[in-house]
Amino acid sequence: MAHPDGQVSPESAVFRAHVGGKLTVRSTLPLTDRAALSLAYTPGVAEVSAAIAADEQLAERYTWRSRLVAVVSDGTAVLGLGNIGPAAALPVMEGKAALFAEFAGLNSVPIVLGTTDTQEIIDTVVRIAPSFGGINLEDISAPRCFEIERRLRELLPIPVFHDDQHGTAIVVLAALRNAALLTGRSVAGLRVAISGAGAAGVACARILLTAGVAELVLTDSRGILHPDRRDLNPIKRELAEITNPAGRQGNLADALRDADVFLGVSGGSVPEAAVAGMADKSIIFALANPTPEVAPAIAHRYAAVVATGRSDLPNQINNVLAFPGVFAGAFDAGAPRITEGMKLAAAGAIGEVVAEELRPDCIVPTPFDPRVARAVRAAVAAQARAEGIATH
Amino acid sequence: MAHPDGQVSPESAVFRAHVGGKLTVRSTLPLTDRAALSLAYTPGVAEVSAAIAADEQLAERYTWRSRLVAVVSDGTAVLGLGNIGPAAALPVMEGKAALFAEFAGLNSVPIVLGTTDTQEIIDTVVRIAPSFGGINLEDISAPRCFEIERRLRELLPIPVFHDDQHGTAIVVLAALRNAALLTGRSVAGLRVAISGAGAAGVACARILLTAGVAELVLTDSRGILHPDRRDLNPIKRELAEITNPAGRQGNLADALRDADVFLGVSGGSVPEAAVAGMADKSIIFALANPTPEVAPAIAHRYAAVVATGRSDLPNQINNVLAFPGVFAGAFDAGAPRITEGMKLAAAGAIGEVVAEELRPDCIVPTPFDPRVARAVRAAVAAQARAEGIATH
Repeated sequence: MAHPDGQVSPESAVFRAHVGGKLTVRSTLPLTDRAALSLAYTPGVAEVSAAIAADEQLAERYTWRSRLVAVVSDGTAVLGLGNIGPAAALPVMEGKAALFAEFAGLNSVPIVLGTTDTQEIIDTVVRIAPSFGGINLEDISAPRCFEIERRLRELLPIPVFHDDQHGTAIVVLAALRNAALLTGRSVAGLRVAISGAGAAGVACARILLTAGVAELVLTDSRGILHPDRRDLNPIKRELAEITNPAGRQGNLADALRDADVFLGVSGGSVPEAAVAGMADKSIIFALANPTPEVAPAIAHRYAAVVATGRSDLPNQINNVLAFPGVFAGAFDAGAPRITEGMKLAAAGAIGEVVAEELRPDCIVPTPFDPRVARAVRAAVAAQARAEGIATH
Repeated sequence: MAHPDGQVSPESAVFRAHVGGKLTVRSTLPLTDRAALSLAYTPGVAEVSAAIAADEQLAERYTWRSRLVAVVSDGTAVLGLGNIGPAAALPVMEGKAALFAEFAGLNSVPIVLGTTDTQEIIDTVVRIAPSFGGINLEDISAPRCFEIERRLRELLPIPVFHDDQHGTAIVVLAALRNAALLTGRSVAGLRVAISGAGAAGVACARILLTAGVAELVLTDSRGILHPDRRDLNPIKRELAEITNPAGRQGNLADALRDADVFLGVSGGSVPEAAVAGMADKSIIFALANPTPEVAPAIAHRYAAVVATGRSDLPNQINNVLAFPGVFAGAFDAGAPRITEGMKLAAAGAIGEVVAEELRPDCIVPTPFDPRVARAVRAAVAAQARAEGIATH
C-alpha cells in the first residue's frame, strides 16, 4: 500500500487497525426468515410507522434515534492537525463514535461535512437532526464553533454539545477541584491563568467562572485578554470583560506571575522562568498533545499537582471521562438540552469517583475506570430531573 | 405504554420487536485498554488522519465510508402510508439499513430529513456525502425523486440509487424475463401495460424500454399516458413521447386490451373485465402491498404467471433481491456510479439464480436465497469493470 510519504511499505499497527474503518452497523433482530422480516420490515413496520405518524413521541420508544449521537465535524480543527477536511477527520470521528459505544453503550454515527460555512453547517445539521437523539459537535474551529453550537441549541429540541469545549471544561473542573482539595485550597479562591482562548480555553474559563473562580486570566497568541485590546473577536472581547479583574496586560509570563494554576489548552511551550513565577504549591495542567506546554519534568520541579493530556502519564485529562456519561444521562432523562447544571453535575461525579483515593498523581480516574461513565450518567440524569427538564 | 389509539395495552409482537430500534453501531476494535485506545484513537489516529489529508484516496482503505450506505428519506412516500414525515419514516429506514447489513454485510445508516424541499434535500445530501460510500434514496415522492436523484448523480462521485425506482425495476425485469421464457415468448416482443407512473412505474418503463420492449403503455390515475394529454408533468410527458407506439387513449381497461403483461405499481383495483381482455397466457405482476391490484384468485383465472409483492404468496417481487448486491458490487469495484448496464446485469443475475428450477410459481428466488446477493454483487462488479468505471 502507499504510505503517506509515498513509499510502499508494510502497514504499521496503527494503519492495520484502521483497515475497513472502526465501526459496524448491525441489525438487533435476526432477519433470517419470512416471519422475522415481516416483523422488522414490511408489512409489520407499517404499523409502527403509522403509530409514530399519529404520535411522534412514540419515535422515542420504537426507533433507535433516542439513544443515537451524531458526531458532527467539518474537519477544520482536528487534533493537532488543524484544517484537514472531512475525509481526513473521519478516522477521528469513527474513534469518537466507538468510544460512545464502548463507554456508554450508545449508538453513534460520524457525520463529516463537505462545507465549512457556518450557516450551511447549521442548516445541514438541522435538516438531518430528525435522524438523531443528540448532536456531538467535534473539531470545528473557533470562533465558528461558538455560533454553530449556540444556534443549534436554539433550533433543536435535542442535546447539542461541542465536546472540545464542554467535555474538556467538565474534566478540567473535576481535576481542579481535586487538586485544590489536595493542596488545601478552594476552587473559588484559585488564581488561574489559561493559555489558549479557542474552544477549550473559552469553555474552561466559563465553567470556572460558574464554579466561582474570581481571579482568572486568559491569554491567546498575542498575550493577556484585556478590554483595551483592539484585536479581539466578539467571544474574546466578552471574556476580556468578565475575566482579568486586576486588569493585567502582557504575555503569558505576566499572566502566570503568582498564579496558583496554569491551564494550557493551546499548544506552544511555556518558558521555565514563567513557570517559576507561579505561586507556591501550584497546579499545572498542560494539556497539549502530544507535547505538553510545560515539560512534565519542569512542571514537577515547581508544582504540587501536574496533569497532562497524555495517556502514558498520570492524571490524564481526557474528554472520554465526560462525554459518554453526559449523553447517556441526558438520554436517560429525555432531556432536550445539556444545561450548565448538568455539566457541573458531571464534573462533580468525575471528581467524586476518586475521592477516597486522592493523591497528587490521582486527581481524576483513568478513562478505563468503569465507575466513571455510570456515575456521570446518573448525576447528569438526576440534575436534569432536578431542573425539571426531564421528559422521562 | 400508549398505543396509537391512545389506549394503554400490551405491546404486540411488531411493537415489541421495535423497542429501542432495530440497529446498533459497535466498534470493530476492543477499546478496553490504553494500548487499544492509542491505536484506535489518540495519539495513533492522528497518523491515519494525516495520511488521508495528504492523499484522500486512503480514506477508502482506512475508514468505514467506502462500504457505508446512507439510506436517505424525507418521509413523503412511505410504503402505502404516503407523506408521514421523517420520524415516522425512520422505522422503515432502520429496516432497510438492517437488510443491507444482513443480506450483504454492508454498513448502513438511516438519514431522515426535516425538509421536503428539493433543493434543500440535494444540498443536505451533498454536504453529508463525505461521510458515506453510497446514497440509497428511499420513499421520496414523485416527481421530486427524479430530479433529486438526477442532480445527486451529477454532483457526487459515489453511487446514488433511488431504490423505489431501480430496485423495483431490476427485480421486475428479472421476473419478466423468466415469465416470458416460461410462456415461450421474448421480452422484447411483449405487449406491456403498466398501471402507475410514479417512481416505480417510470423506472420499470425505462428498464423495459432498454431491454427492448416496444409495445409499452403506462397509465396514471387519469388514464393512458399519451402526448395529447395536457395534464402531464415533464417526466410523464417524456414517457408519453417514447411509449405507447399505437397511440392508445383511454383507461386502464383500454391499456390492458390484448396486453401480454399487466404490471401494477400503483395500488388501486383492476376490474376483472379488464383482466379478461388481456391476451392468452398473460403475465400479471400485481405489486401493490398489502392488496394486489388484481386479486390472486382472479389473476390465476386468466394468467399463466402471477407475481405479487406479498411475502406470503409465491413469486414475491421484493427489492431486497436487488439493492444489497447492487451496492456491494458497486463497492467491490469502487464504481463511482450505478449505470444502466449494472442494473441490467443485476436483473440478469437474479433471473439466472432460478434458471434451473423455473416454474410458474418460481420465476424469482425468495429473498432468503443466499445465492442472490452473491450473484448480483459479482455481476454488478464485473459489469462495472467491463464498462471501465471500476477503480479497484
